[in-house]
Amino acid sequence: MKAAILTIGDEIMIGQIVDSNSAWISAFLDQHGWKITRKLAVGDDIDEIKKGIDLCRQSADLLILTGGLGPTNDDLTVDALTQYFHTHKAWHEETWVRIQEIVKRFGREATDIHKQQCYLPESAEIIANEQGTAPGMIFRDKNLILVSMPGVPSEMKHLLKDKIIHLLPKASPVEHRFIRTAGEGETVLSEMIKDIEDGLPKEIKLAYLPSYGFVTLRLTSHATGQVTLMDSFQDRIVTRLGKLVYGIGDTNLSKAVGQLLRVRKETLGTGESCTGGYLAHLITSVPDSSDYYLGSIIPYAYEIKTSELGISEQLLKFYGAVSEEVVSAMAKAVREKLGVTWALSTSGIAGPGGATPTKPVGTIWIACSGPGGILKTRLLNLKRDRLGNIEYTAIAALILLRKCILEQG
Amino acid sequence: MKAAILTIGDEIMIGQIVDSNSAWISAFLDQHGWKITRKLAVGDDIDEIKKGIDLCRQSADLLILTGGLGPTNDDLTVDALTQYFHTHKAWHEETWVRIQEIVKRFGREATDIHKQQCYLPESAEIIANEQGTAPGMIFRDKNLILVSMPGVPSEMKHLLKDKIIHLLPKASPVEHRFIRTAGEGETVLSEMIKDIEDGLPKEIKLAYLPSYGFVTLRLTSHATGQVTLMDSFQDRIVTRLGKLVYGIGDTNLSKAVGQLLRVRKETLGTGESCTGGYLAHLITSVPDSSDYYLGSIIPYAYEIKTSELGISEQLLKFYGAVSEEVVSAMAKAVREKLGVTWALSTSGIAGPGGATPTKPVGTIWIACSGPGGILKTRLLNLKRDRLGNIEYTAIAALILLRKCILEQG
Repeated sequence: MKAAILTIGDEIMIGQIVDSNSAWISAFLDQHGWKITRKLAVGDDIDEIKKGIDLCRQSADLLILTGGLGPTNDDLTVDALTQYFHTHKAWHEETWVRIQEIVKRFGREATDIHKQQCYLPESAEIIANEQGTAPGMIFRDKNLILVSMPGVPSEMKHLLKDKIIHLLPKASPVEHRFIRTAGEGETVLSEMIKDIEDGLPKEIKLAYLPSYGFVTLRLTSHATGQVTLMDSFQDRIVTRLGKLVYGIGDTNLSKAVGQLLRVRKETLGTGESCTGGYLAHLITSVPDSSDYYLGSIIPYAYEIKTSELGISEQLLKFYGAVSEEVVSAMAKAVREKLGVTWALSTSGIAGPGGATPTKPVGTIWIACSGPGGILKTRLLNLKRDRLGNIEYTAIAALILLRKCILEQG
Repeated sequence: MKAAILTIGDEIMIGQIVDSNSAWISAFLDQHGWKITRKLAVGDDIDEIKKGIDLCRQSADLLILTGGLGPTNDDLTVDALTQYFHTHKAWHEETWVRIQEIVKRFGREATDIHKQQCYLPESAEIIANEQGTAPGMIFRDKNLILVSMPGVPSEMKHLLKDKIIHLLPKASPVEHRFIRTAGEGETVLSEMIKDIEDGLPKEIKLAYLPSYGFVTLRLTSHATGQVTLMDSFQDRIVTRLGKLVYGIGDTNLSKAVGQLLRVRKETLGTGESCTGGYLAHLITSVPDSSDYYLGSIIPYAYEIKTSELGISEQLLKFYGAVSEEVVSAMAKAVREKLGVTWALSTSGIAGPGGATPTKPVGTIWIACSGPGGILKTRLLNLKRDRLGNIEYTAIAALILLRKCILEQG
């Protein structure tokens, strides 16, 4: 059960966009038991697409193609597939009906250019795309199943997850266990569980997947009948790592913290200066976060810190906006103004500008204010670029909140 | 002057990490005049690496390899290259001296594991890596130059930029022009400029690069002496598309709108319900956005809409939070409270929960309030997932703001 991925698009070849689609497809197919052998990207060029298919099928039973299905002249995938499979393009009425509906949703009329998207290879099974005009296609040829999907990530994911995976042969799924930790790096974690790791049987592999502020531990087995053993190793690791584990399985820190708040019937508010809305965004990315998240005040400018949060001009002048004193006052003010159980605040220099001799770019204070006078602060000294500093800070704030909640008992 | 990129690593094949290296390399080589024909990724497997080299060299004079150069057992690139080029591994004393220095910087001692990294293919030109232990290597073989570098992004970039690009043949750089548009899809755009597109000479290619809410048009020429012609085609397209063009070159909508505000010495504030901070994040992702962006109030909960923005309970009950009336009141209140020139507001059902019989998921109102009583609203009916709805709405809000500013004159 081997699969390959072929990504099509000049924008990939000139490095204008990062190909995140193929990573998503790999992870998705991996979970469904497919082994990915090759990932190839080629430009919008009929010959290169055809050669690319040949190169990929050498090592795969399943080939997933994305990209090149738009309505404009630089989209050549349909023509390449029609030639490759020696078929013809034919009018596909269902696609035309569907495209008209989709275009209508946006208050538009379908045009002649949309009509071009309805001429599709006769030998393909056409898969309706509910989120965009270009349909998915499945070709079955000797030892190869070829799936073609548009490159727009949301449309591709929708088609593969909701429509196509059920039409593919079932592989014996790989077993994964994900243990999500926050607060320590992989070196510390691996020392903490060294003896457990050394005792893992050959069939079970452990990987450390570090990212901004947290590390996910992944147990993997391609063998069958390992479920109980994997569960028991997962349990041992979770017990050993204790409070560093914020969740297992398909979760993330925002979800996990949200779930803590929901169970405790507590609420959260934020006051963000340097993170400029990203912390609120992380929190509200979780469905039903309105159950516990009441809102935010983003006092980006000095005067808003004073007018909306009542931070005195003296405090701002004396300590500066990027200070433990101001970030603490912000957290307390948010807690009071929004009437929430917990308030998080951030203030710092995300960069690239704004540094002072004593406060270089990456100097960032975060604070958490809670019931019973709880107030925790933390100083971060980051070295990333603007976006990296913002993202890391938001995650550090969630970790701080989780710590406060757990200490509260 | 054709180049290919071969990325090596199991973590790429199972989708654990997104291969951002190859995008960076593509863009870097593209700027230096190389045309990237293929990008291939394979796992840590000697045979697959050797086959991968063969597949890539079919269409390239230059092949850039990254990954698989670490000191652990799963790093197999050196062995694969040694076999592929029929050479032998030999002790490389300079690398040993360098590794000892590097390891010392981190207060450690070089170990036997590091010694393994000093046995290198005899036929390779070894390139000292100042930022990590694994060196770069250049092989010259018949019609192929093969460059091998570690996969750590900072080390790879350092080697290619500072050490290796000067050792490669000089190509004539590619010319690109980027025309950034918002407000219409690629279908409409391509109809608007059909005659200009039809008149493009063979050497100049036009591509449509759509993403959420906007389309970038890219003109590309690999030929020399096309600068004036490309500028004139760019001018014609920009003139034809008029206000749909928000910028040219290396910009994005947030930056472009920010620049409009900066020039006009105007300010912006936001009041976000359903976008929950993402709009503020888009705006504050731009360096120095504090020049014009004063802040946001995110009244996620009903009661905060009332307490912080003074939206009356009657209005909320009568029309519902997701209504033109409430989103308009929010924009006006933000404008007044924060004392900004322009205020944007959003209120809607991002999903997956929260739908009502008359307001399905994706029903989202946005509003823009400005000087002289300007008030523009727009209803969106989106069909994406939660994150997609949030992202699209934030972009639609920026487009609405841009429209208001331009109409203001």
